[in-house]
Amino acid sequence: MTDFSATRALFHLPDGVIYLDGNSLGPLPKAAAARVARTIEAEWGEMLITGWNKAGWMEMPSRIGNRIGRLIGAEPDTVVIGDTLSIKVYQALASALEMNPTRRVILSDTGNFPSDLYMAEGLCRTLGNGYRLKTVAPEEVEAAIDETVAVTMITEVDYRTGRKHDMGRLTAKAHAKGAIAVWDLAHSAGAIPVDLKGAGADFAVGCSYKYLNSGPGGPAFIYVAPRHAEAARPALSGWLGHEAPFAFDLSYRPGRGIERMRVGTPPVLQMAALEASLDIWDRVEMADIRARSIELTERFIAGVEAACPTLWLASPRNPAERGSQVSFRHPEGYAIMQALIARGVIGDFRAPDILRFGFTPLYIGEAEVDGAVAILAEVMDKALWDRPEYKVRARVT
Amino acid sequence: MTDFSATRALFHLPDGVIYLDGNSLGPLPKAAAARVARTIEAEWGEMLITGWNKAGWMEMPSRIGNRIGRLIGAEPDTVVIGDTLSIKVYQALASALEMNPTRRVILSDTGNFPSDLYMAEGLCRTLGNGYRLKTVAPEEVEAAIDETVAVTMITEVDYRTGRKHDMGRLTAKAHAKGAIAVWDLAHSAGAIPVDLKGAGADFAVGCSYKYLNSGPGGPAFIYVAPRHAEAARPALSGWLGHEAPFAFDLSYRPGRGIERMRVGTPPVLQMAALEASLDIWDRVEMADIRARSIELTERFIAGVEAACPTLWLASPRNPAERGSQVSFRHPEGYAIMQALIARGVIGDFRAPDILRFGFTPLYIGEAEVDGAVAILAEVMDKALWDRPEYKVRARVT
Repeated sequence: MTDFSATRALFHLPDGVIYLDGNSLGPLPKAAAARVARTIEAEWGEMLITGWNKAGWMEMPSRIGNRIGRLIGAEPDTVVIGDTLSIKVYQALASALEMNPTRRVILSDTGNFPSDLYMAEGLCRTLGNGYRLKTVAPEEVEAAIDETVAVTMITEVDYRTGRKHDMGRLTAKAHAKGAIAVWDLAHSAGAIPVDLKGAGADFAVGCSYKYLNSGPGGPAFIYVAPRHAEAARPALSGWLGHEAPFAFDLSYRPGRGIERMRVGTPPVLQMAALEASLDIWDRVEMADIRARSIELTERFIAGVEAACPTLWLASPRNPAERGSQVSFRHPEGYAIMQALIARGVIGDFRAPDILRFGFTPLYIGEAEVDGAVAILAEVMDKALWDRPEYKVRARVT
Repeated sequence: MTDFSATRALFHLPDGVIYLDGNSLGPLPKAAAARVARTIEAEWGEMLITGWNKAGWMEMPSRIGNRIGRLIGAEPDTVVIGDTLSIKVYQALASALEMNPTRRVILSDTGNFPSDLYMAEGLCRTLGNGYRLKTVAPEEVEAAIDETVAVTMITEVDYRTGRKHDMGRLTAKAHAKGAIAVWDLAHSAGAIPVDLKGAGADFAVGCSYKYLNSGPGGPAFIYVAPRHAEAARPALSGWLGHEAPFAFDLSYRPGRGIERMRVGTPPVLQMAALEASLDIWDRVEMADIRARSIELTERFIAGVEAACPTLWLASPRNPAERGSQVSFRHPEGYAIMQALIARGVIGDFRAPDILRFGFTPLYIGEAEVDGAVAILAEVMDKALWDRPEYKVRARVT
């Protein structure tokens, strides 16, 4: 059983702040500063170039990949870290499209994070030859998977509403129609249990600076199912994905399995911070996180709905259908969030009208939930945003 | 006039080490540890998500880009940092090819760093339609620029030998033949004066962890000439290169000028280390670096040739034709470098037979040059690698 009072003590949280934006940038693990300082002073400073071997920098992308893999139900040696999530999306899509060469459609939904859509657009434009991105509403994506679809590119948890797709079901549908399933776990990894192996996912990508608390600009990760590992050809064929990087061959030969998804020199300082965070994750079971997350989000929804009648729940009411965030809509959402932040409750706003609140059991408990509800109620009342004209329930998706 | 005794005092160099591998990984600027610690504790720790605005993280890629721009002769607002060099190579090539749509050849040379060649290969494979990478010997590259060439992809300074291409001349030839010139400055930025504007370069890329001393895995940079800035379409069209990233539009619109070459969330900790290093670079004139570099490399060559008759100079003898490194060949090069490193002289080895030594005036002076020569002479003598059979002058390129 995960001890959440113990994990909470491992994070630095500023005085007077209720931090409900760990779905955007996780807070600082207390051990991260010392871990990075050690990497800078004892490794970079003293070992210099030899740190790549002596300090094990070169193996970090695979070693850390395995640690993340445990949290997302990945098989051993199927995950590697590096680059940004956008780059990893491009890698996954390019390889997936190449594995399904007679089809031309990447299917996604309008709830996907825009950068995923942009990267798909850019890839399709680069590929030419009729490749295109097709987006449908989130609730229509299952029906839209048909024999024209080469690849589905779906973010499991919607960054705006927290609405969760059914990974197993959509992957099965994709496979039934001959499509390859690429999953974005940006709002899943560290937020909810993920079972990539069980779902039969083909590729997955995600980032480390949200629920995994690696710090601003921490590296992304990519998963390739073992059955594809030796078939996936990287489009971004960088030297550290080469079979023998230090042979300095003039031609590319893909490395073994997931190693080929490495590209260039990995960010050692960011990886050090991520390792400090993963030391905390090593103590945690995702099932415990999930149970606790549901307790906290249910409590928050109940509290807000009781206290703030003009805030409209944008997240699914059924906890099984959402991730670890809760969103409310209000036409004055931007101003409300500014007022909240001024009072020390940090969530965030997403246009046009969404107030987002992330619930992260590693360091958030009932006291923060109740405190946030109280301050939100105060803000709504004082600012007169609870006037009847705001009771309009405009439906925006 | 740059004060090199002052710059030297700003670096941490381990006791008993003569560090001649700053061309591979620069040493630690003393201020970097405190700068990164501040970013971690006072920014990430205290500001949390608001650091993107309050601490200016979001502007770092452009702000730092401009600081690097000064060192490579770039116009204001033409350089942005992020990702790895391999990714930036891909970006530059993809945009350049799209701007020259009737041609299909990327021309490079066999002295280019392999990752550049691999990325070009991967891009050509992704593009299909007859796109191909053509490589010739370095000394043949000028003659090979003809009307079939869409893009030249040339690394100014050869990572093995230090041989320097003439950027102005090759760019002029490229333009005369209707090709677009992409330059890799990995071994140029911070090593030699570069005049991108004067040379008329179209695109340039480079890395920050070699001569610019940003630490292991520091971000890369990309330059786009102002005349192309609004025409270059990014293939890697990530959200931070979007005209309005926080509008979360469903379709990509490229950002203003060089901003569109940003992709995903930038690595804040690595950027902080880079800024600490650039504080040193702000005190430095590249002309002074060059003059001092030539003094040091000439002294090293003279010393080694006098003391070690079986080491064969692999770098150009004329300092105007080389960068800031000196390479020697020896059939037992690997073992010799291991012996040197064991005695505290850190250079590196590149297969099949190259011993590389980088000369970095910010923190290396005559004492290190003379010390390295003496230890190299000792190693050669003791190990009996100066036997007559090694006097074979095998020509390897």
